[in-house]
Amino acid sequence: MLSINKIKYLNSLSVKKYRLAEQKVLLEGYRIINEAIKTSVIFEHIWINDNLKSNQDIKKLIPIIRKNNISYNFENEKKINSVSNTKNNQGIVALVNIKDFYKNKVFTDKVVILDQISDPGNLGTIIRTCAWFNIKTLILTKNSADIFNPKCLRSGMGGHFYLENCIYLSDNKIADFLKSNKYLVYCADSMGEPVNQIENLEKWALILGSEAHGVSPELKIGKVISIPGEGKIESLNVSVAAGVLLNNLTN
Amino acid sequence: MLSINKIKYLNSLSVKKYRLAEQKVLLEGYRIINEAIKTSVIFEHIWINDNLKSNQDIKKLIPIIRKNNISYNFENEKKINSVSNTKNNQGIVALVNIKDFYKNKVFTDKVVILDQISDPGNLGTIIRTCAWFNIKTLILTKNSADIFNPKCLRSGMGGHFYLENCIYLSDNKIADFLKSNKYLVYCADSMGEPVNQIENLEKWALILGSEAHGVSPELKIGKVISIPGEGKIESLNVSVAAGVLLNNLTN
Repeated sequence: MLSINKIKYLNSLSVKKYRLAEQKVLLEGYRIINEAIKTSVIFEHIWINDNLKSNQDIKKLIPIIRKNNISYNFENEKKINSVSNTKNNQGIVALVNIKDFYKNKVFTDKVVILDQISDPGNLGTIIRTCAWFNIKTLILTKNSADIFNPKCLRSGMGGHFYLENCIYLSDNKIADFLKSNKYLVYCADSMGEPVNQIENLEKWALILGSEAHGVSPELKIGKVISIPGEGKIESLNVSVAAGVLLNNLTN
Repeated sequence: MLSINKIKYLNSLSVKKYRLAEQKVLLEGYRIINEAIKTSVIFEHIWINDNLKSNQDIKKLIPIIRKNNISYNFENEKKINSVSNTKNNQGIVALVNIKDFYKNKVFTDKVVILDQISDPGNLGTIIRTCAWFNIKTLILTKNSADIFNPKCLRSGMGGHFYLENCIYLSDNKIADFLKSNKYLVYCADSMGEPVNQIENLEKWALILGSEAHGVSPELKIGKVISIPGEGKIESLNVSVAAGVLLNNLTN
């Protein structure tokens, strides 16, 4: 049962410092929870709106929840609404443990580096795109948005939990890491080599900067690559650019 | 000066029926307005927060506004806030005329068709991406979001005004149009031919469906194309998919 204290606790997780202290986050919505169950992330509990008992998606999900030994219960709509961060919530929320998330494991041969991406929606969409292209290491500069921001979790669509490595580092440490590990570095910017002409390689890192400021001078390293466009508009959305570049580098 | 009646009028434009009746929309933010000025869209007036008189971006923009004979004035912050749709507005709003926007002109050889895209943020990002890849014809199914929704204008970043043709049609009319005009049709879906293997052609139409439902049966025509991904996540964000597909079809 969702007690008043539990509701307060779950609400507190929308604030970064409490998420960090507790190492727990709240996932919302059928698609994200369905996706996250497929990964190794640890679920603490799932709460479902009791109006959804006969909903087709939920009816398919329950056996999966049981098979994975995840505790769950139905709650009345009012209580579900009181823990949800979204106006039109989908009636299902889950508490998951992110304790091991920032632990450094072995770094993969393909790395995405995000410099000052401050919009959590864009950040989540990039994480989802990384999951699609099987990129398992994400490095963010210290002033990037928090990947567990509720908006970022929402647009990430469960992609967060396919990551194997995710760390926040200073610009200097990122540059040192790339150099000492001998990554071929691509830096996304205008006026670079067209990405369509880049040959596929085994070990690379892609650096993407914020839409407002581009890649910061400290991280302008490696080969500059660009997305050719015949139109006159100034730029692409950064998550769209990430998708185009990753498609070219991985396929 | 922004009178109370004018503020009421500008606020009314956040509602679709008033936008359609008046054929006017409100643009917000420096980057969007700066981008839109480069196009042929007709500006009625620009209001700027008078705290921004010494702002570098605004100082660069004023001569461009003057050169284009657009009327403008500075207003106090409170009034600017009262007409803005965003919490942290950038202190600049513009009223533009969209009277000629839906008029049918000559259709271009490259067409993007959007089926039931209901999220205005995604729709705007797709419009921005179309502008980047120089796609000038956009056809939407009747149940798609309104392209002049404030959120859609925001994520469109001025891309709207690079479109030459934008119409809402029924599924049947879209199918007839494609057939009688002999477009080579690509339909984005899972399990299709990898888009990287498609050869560039002169005259094509790309159909994209909603994330929740995919392309509706009536529009499942032409060659099915997909974005190869080695990851295990179910899908890409639709605006990211649009970017990847358009990059492959145009470059």
